Amino acid sequence: MGFRLTPQDTSFYSLFATSAGLLVEATRELTKLLELGVPERTSIAERLRALENEADEATHELIKKVNTSFITPFDREDIHNLAAHLDDCMDHIEETADLIVLYRIGVLPEGMAEQIEILSRMAEVTAEAMPRLRSLNDLRSYWIEINRLENQADKLHRKMLADLFNNSHQDAVYIIKMKGVIDGFEEAADSFEKVAHTVEGIAVKES
Amino acid sequence: MGFRLTPQDTSFYSLFATSAGLLVEATRELTKLLELGVPERTSIAERLRALENEADEATHELIKKVNTSFITPFDREDIHNLAAHLDDCMDHIEETADLIVLYRIGVLPEGMAEQIEILSRMAEVTAEAMPRLRSLNDLRSYWIEINRLENQADKLHRKMLADLFNNSHQDAVYIIKMKGVIDGFEEAADSFEKVAHTVEGIAVKES
Amino acid sequence: MGFRLTPQDTSFYSLFATSAGLLVEATRELTKLLELGVPERTSIAERLRALENEADEATHELIKKVNTSFITPFDREDIHNLAAHLDDCMDHIEETADLIVLYRIGVLPEGMAEQIEILSRMAEVTAEAMPRLRSLNDLRSYWIEINRLENQADKLHRKMLADLFNNSHQDAVYIIKMKGVIDGFEEAADSFEKVAHTVEGIAVKES
Repeated sequence: MGFRLTPQDTSFYSLFATSAGLLVEATRELTKLLELGVPERTSIAERLRALENEADEATHELIKKVNTSFITPFDREDIHNLAAHLDDCMDHIEETADLIVLYRIGVLPEGMAEQIEILSRMAEVTAEAMPRLRSLNDLRSYWIEINRLENQADKLHRKMLADLFNNSHQDAVYIIKMKGVIDGFEEAADSFEKVAHTVEGIAVKES
Repeated sequence: MGFRLTPQDTSFYSLFATSAGLLVEATRELTKLLELGVPERTSIAERLRALENEADEATHELIKKVNTSFITPFDREDIHNLAAHLDDCMDHIEETADLIVLYRIGVLPEGMAEQIEILSRMAEVTAEAMPRLRSLNDLRSYWIEINRLENQADKLHRKMLADLFNNSHQDAVYIIKMKGVIDGFEEAADSFEKVAHTVEGIAVKES
Repeated sequence: MGFRLTPQDTSFYSLFATSAGLLVEATRELTKLLELGVPERTSIAERLRALENEADEATHELIKKVNTSFITPFDREDIHNLAAHLDDCMDHIEETADLIVLYRIGVLPEGMAEQIEILSRMAEVTAEAMPRLRSLNDLRSYWIEINRLENQADKLHRKMLADLFNNSHQDAVYIIKMKGVIDGFEEAADSFEKVAHTVEGIAVKES
């Protein structure tokens, strides 16, 4: 596939870049969440809610654009899917951060810093890849890196579950809450992988 | 897209309308579930199982029709997806109601009446939209309303989780059971949103 | 659709057969898991991890093949979906077996032998169906059997949940762990059904 220089195409790519950029911002908020005490966390959750609203608007902009464009750079379904999976990343991040606040969790487990670090890397790598959708070049390294990060996240997730159940002296209610949070961040990591799979699928079809 | 008057098309629409109509009936059973005591709930769960079987038959009818039709009103994949997501709505409703019976839950939390009211509205709005698939007119108001209802459901879901963990004096086993039920109804709401997204996708492609 | 005798096609079918064959092996390991004591289970979990890696390689081989093939036997998206759902079956089997080890669960509930037996049947039926993708003949009996098995799995899953909550004298932490395992095997069964639905979709489109 050659270069695409039509002005219509431009904003599809820029809307995907916007969505992924919001995910970079969202994971930065997650990092702050770890460093702050319980009272300050509420403002982080609100900030994430605002980012989620912005992401929703970017998604709707994309859908409207698909609606009104005669020509789209990829299959309309692929644009839909890519937008939907980027949306899922944000949803899981926002929801899981909100659970930490709603459940009034005090001390977060050690592994959570690494979980959030992996999500931050995933967001950055995704944001860097979005502009390359235009040329469909060099995307292979992106999805390989995402797969690697997802494997790392998965391994960590299992270790955290084992620690939660076996090494902690916490009661059952704490375990239920914390399992919800640990699982929520793992679902965010899974959603980043689905974004990468969709990009891989687009590259497969268009190349 | 103009009018479609071919006889083959008719029953696709009517089968979708049947599926959505069964969801309206199912949410009515959910409302009864709230009003009845523990012993009477078993018969509601059985009635929902019967509705789910009917819905399965409608789905299989659709698949068979797709198999044997030379021309379909939309892409075959979209018909498959729409049928599958409508099926998911019913599955989550039936399964969650059954959990209430299986877990022998006594008092249901206050928010659950509103959760079920939202599901009832979603079912009605969906059933009203299905006949409009024929002309693909006026569907935008449908998916906007479903998005609004899903946001409302999501907010309520989080409030119910917070109440369950923070304000209740229930034991851990009760919390696990009730979380399963609260989450199950939220998954039903998510499935209604997926139906709306699929309809949006069809409208995008066909218009 | 007539016969396909081009050499390119051959390895798509054989890669799907390889994936499904690995699932047969994986469910055999699950059966051993039931029969062995806690210390021996670790080696089963490692064996399943190795099988999952093999399955990942088969999936990547498929994707690479889709990338480099000018002609594919089915739509590229369908090949992607079929590969992805087969992958999900393996992921759920491997992950759930690992949970049994990670959670250091002693006695497994009675119904689990039947759960695993159903998964074994699903894997066998799937492996037998994969070569029939070539001619697209006799696939109907496959997806009907998978649906039947999934219904059976679903019924058993509910009974096991009811028993776990109502008849056991176990504490809440045990219930959380065991619910995770019981649900994990049910998700594996659901993934087998998604494989069957994808095959049904392919048959619908290609026939």
